[in-house]
This record gives sequence, structure tokens and C-alpha cells, in this order.
Amino acid sequence: MDFSLTTLGTASAVPTKDNFSSAHVLNVRGRLFLIDCCEGCQMLLRRNGISHAKIDNIFITHIHGDHVFGLMPLLSTMALQGRVAPLYIFAPPAFSHILKFFKMYFGDGVQFDIIFTPLSSTEPQTIIESRNFIVQTFPLNHKIETYGFLFKETEPLLNVHKWKVEADNLSLHEIALLKQGQNVFREDGSLLDVNDFTYKPYTPRSAAFCSDTAVFEELPTLIAGVDLLYHEATFGSDMQDKAAKYFHSTSVDAAIVAKKAGAKKLVIGHFSSRCEDTNILLAQARAIFPETYLSKEGMVFDIPLQKNS
Amino acid sequence: MDFSLTTLGTASAVPTKDNFSSAHVLNVRGRLFLIDCCEGCQMLLRRNGISHAKIDNIFITHIHGDHVFGLMPLLSTMALQGRVAPLYIFAPPAFSHILKFFKMYFGDGVQFDIIFTPLSSTEPQTIIESRNFIVQTFPLNHKIETYGFLFKETEPLLNVHKWKVEADNLSLHEIALLKQGQNVFREDGSLLDVNDFTYKPYTPRSAAFCSDTAVFEELPTLIAGVDLLYHEATFGSDMQDKAAKYFHSTSVDAAIVAKKAGAKKLVIGHFSSRCEDTNILLAQARAIFPETYLSKEGMVFDIPLQKNS
Repeated sequence: MDFSLTTLGTASAVPTKDNFSSAHVLNVRGRLFLIDCCEGCQMLLRRNGISHAKIDNIFITHIHGDHVFGLMPLLSTMALQGRVAPLYIFAPPAFSHILKFFKMYFGDGVQFDIIFTPLSSTEPQTIIESRNFIVQTFPLNHKIETYGFLFKETEPLLNVHKWKVEADNLSLHEIALLKQGQNVFREDGSLLDVNDFTYKPYTPRSAAFCSDTAVFEELPTLIAGVDLLYHEATFGSDMQDKAAKYFHSTSVDAAIVAKKAGAKKLVIGHFSSRCEDTNILLAQARAIFPETYLSKEGMVFDIPLQKNS
Repeated sequence: MDFSLTTLGTASAVPTKDNFSSAHVLNVRGRLFLIDCCEGCQMLLRRNGISHAKIDNIFITHIHGDHVFGLMPLLSTMALQGRVAPLYIFAPPAFSHILKFFKMYFGDGVQFDIIFTPLSSTEPQTIIESRNFIVQTFPLNHKIETYGFLFKETEPLLNVHKWKVEADNLSLHEIALLKQGQNVFREDGSLLDVNDFTYKPYTPRSAAFCSDTAVFEELPTLIAGVDLLYHEATFGSDMQDKAAKYFHSTSVDAAIVAKKAGAKKLVIGHFSSRCEDTNILLAQARAIFPETYLSKEGMVFDIPLQKNS
């Protein structure tokens, strides 16, 4: 039951010789979500051992080139390699033009459905509800329409203590009720209190993805208690003016969000090409939020499952 | 007076982990022509030490993704880095749609002129005439409208033997006439025969670029005597059927073209991802045309100037 974030690209608008722009893969229990798709994304996937055939969902935070230029090439390669499985793309409404353009000029031979869901909420909104997790989106505070994402495992069914099953000779029906968190009233008038019979098998995990954005007041509440927060840190704290001008965050901004949100771990990325030493950004953020890590191509930030018994 | 071809990408439609698709830079006496612009082209330029600021001309052979997906990101980076010099793009007419799309969705902040010349000739046509070289284009034989390019240095002015200048006391006017290849008739009735007084300072060089194309009869004539021929070799000779189906060439096709054209050197590229060992393609081509070389990222194929005296 993996839950991890893999970094592919960490640069911002202008990629450098070694760092591509924005692309990350979030693995939620084996389902891979590609978040943003910079130029070169298909090569980044390949050289980090992630098959694009396993990606069924692509999330585009906003329609700036450094977050989307790799999408047409990726779709093209998927088509050339015979993909037939449908592909779900979630992006701001303007993305429909890119899709239309792709289909018109490079869509020959595409044999899979591309199912596009425009993001357009002003409030947090659930966009995927699965048996084990949900995905919510919420607006960020960037120059153009931009969305963040929150992935949360749902509350698991309760486990019934094995020794209780035997000791109280529980029926299958009674076990089912207890697992759903219900007390059981037996025909003999006795009560099986769910708290005595069950425990939560694991603590649900969560991850939030916030890029690109300037600071805004509501963000820590939207992602409160998240296990892993990816937050952009385009600039160091010495370039607060640039961050404000371009609706970006500094390393310090990101750390403050993580701290206010009560996040367990912070990953910063989307570094400006002006930033020569990202370790300075790391130090600035760690001074406020010690559990900060630098995003680097190929790094996997795992959220381990905490089992109870 | 450089004249050289630098390979950036050598893969065909599907890039591999290590090889990007099509992009080459032809340096003609310090003027850089980018020929095709695959995904990742701006990074390839950077890591091969070629500043995109020095590129004033981009030639797109045809509108297949693997030859053009890197163009929007490159234009975007040029804009972000403050380019103001005009950029000349030569491409098939359908390219106008890409340009329009780029300007509409990613053109914010572009402060340089993009001057687009649609290629539409059915016959060889001169598209650039400079003082020292010309560029011609000619249609290739691919699935969609595709163009090849021929770069040729113009015939240089003749040099006048220094010792003749002194011995015959040549005037500036006489020297100018001789340099242009004209005989000079002196007032005293004597003739200064241009053949006795001059020599060609160097042999004009030429390079041809042919990708993507299936074989066609006229090609060797179009590029007759070229110093350097880049010709695609998507497949090995064992995949002749695939080459025919997709309007591509095999390594043997490329070698035959080079031989028939009387080329001095052949560079093959645009290798299919199906091709595991390009050395097999090289061996197949060399059996027919020994001066064949494999295109690899970062390789520079120089055409040295042959000076006469």
C-alpha cells in the first residue's frame, strides 16, 4: 500500500542543463498520478523507471508552459506505443484548447480516450472518490487560474480483535457491524461495545501538492494535518519582492505554511534558475520547519503506513 | 570560417531514455541554423554549449511531433530570457497554426519578432541568399509535406597572386576586375589573362539535410557533390518493409543516396527505438559508402576549409 511522491523535475520556468521543470508522480496505493508535465517528462519517467502505461490520471495545476509543455509529446508517445486505456486529465478549463490543438495536429493514431475534467472550483472540491482514497482540489493564488491537490486515504474499516471473535463467538453479521463502527445489541439483551471489540488497522495518510502559488491565508487550513506537503519555493527569502511580483513563494513562505498546517513533512521545489545553491533555501526553510527536504530528480518521498494492532 | 553539423538528438518518433528525437545545428561561418526542434531541444542546446541566443534561423522539416515539440518551450525560454532579436522560422505552411497557438496561449512577454516563411515549393528553391552562402530547400518523400535543405557556400572572389601584383604593377581597379574573374585589357593593348593572375582561394563547401524521407529518384541529383550529407536511416536493411510503409529510409538506402550523389561524407541518424544496436546500421551503410558516420548527441561533423594558394 504505497503512498509516495517521486520528483521528476524541480526547475521553474526556465529549465537548466540538469534540471527539468515541473513534473511529479504521486503513487497512491499503486495508482499513479502525474502532476504537471514539463518538457522532457516522458524521458524523466523513463529514466526513473516509471512506465507511462501505468499512468491513468494527469493533473495539470495551471497552463504555464513549464507545467504543460511535455504533455503533447507524452500523449504522442502513448499513442505510438499502442495505448488503449483511457486517460483522465484534470486541468483548468483553458486546457481544452491544448487538447483540441493536439488532436487536430498530432492526434493521428490516438486510439485511447482522453477524458478531460475542467477544474473550476472556488472552494475545495472532491474530484475523485475511490474506495480507499479521495482527491480534492482547491484554488491557489497564482498569476493565472491554478489549482492545488489534496490526496487523502479514507478511514479504513475497523479490525475486530481476533481473540474477541473467539471469546464471544461473534457471528459474521456481528463482525460486519462492528467493522463499520456500530455497537451490536444481541438478542439476549447484551451489548457488544464497538470500542471494546475493535481497533483502527492504520492511520489514513495524506499528501498535498501546492504549485505555483503566493501565500494566502486559507491554505494551512485547507491542508491541515497533512503527512506530506509539496510546496513550491521558487525563491530564497532574499527575493521576497520577486516572489510577490510573480505570485510565487519563498522557502520561508513554504515553511510557514507547513508549520501552520501542522504538516509532518515538507518538500520544496520549483526552484528559480537564478538560485545557484538550493541548500540555502533548505536551510532557510529548516530554520522554521525542520522536516523540510529538497526536491531532486529521482527522489522518492515515502509516507509509510502506520499499522496499529 | 566554420562549417559544421552538431547533432543534438538522434532518435525517431519515440525518444529513448538517453536519446532525444530530431534536432541538429548547422554552423555556416558562425551563423547557426537549428534544424528541427524535438522535445528537450533547449536542454540539448544548453548541455552542448550552444547558446540559443545565437540562433537566428530555425528550419522545421515537417510537422511531426518528434521534429517540433521542443519549439514552443524554446520560444518560451527565449522570451523569458529577454530576447529581442528577430527569429526567422522556415517550415511547411501548417506551422502557422502552431505559431498562432503559441502566441495565443504562451506568448505573454514575447518581445521579439517571429518571422515565418512557409515552405511550399515542388521544385528546389533558394530561401536564403547571403553574401557567402545560399540555402536551398526541396521537397522530400515522406508521409506528410516535408522539406530537405542544401547549404552551399557561394563561389569566392578570386585571389590575385601577390607576386603578380608587384611584377605587373596592377592598379586597384585591375585587381578588382581580376578578382571578379574578368580579363583586363590595358590601354597599351596588352591582355591580363585572369587565369594567369588568379587562383580560387578555397573550394566552396556544402551540406545537405534530408530527414524524414523514403528513397526517391531525384534526390542524388538535387544534392550532387555535397561535402556532408545528413540522411535519415530510421531502420536497418532488415526492416525495408517498415521503411516503405512509413516513408522512411534504411541505412542501405541512405548509403546508396550518398554514393549516387557523390557525397564526401554521410551522417546517418533518426534511429528507430526498435533498433537496439546502431552499429549494425553503420556497418550496413559502410559496406556501400565507407565514409558513413553515426549521428550521436554532441558529435560535431566538421567540413574543413580547403585553402588553395
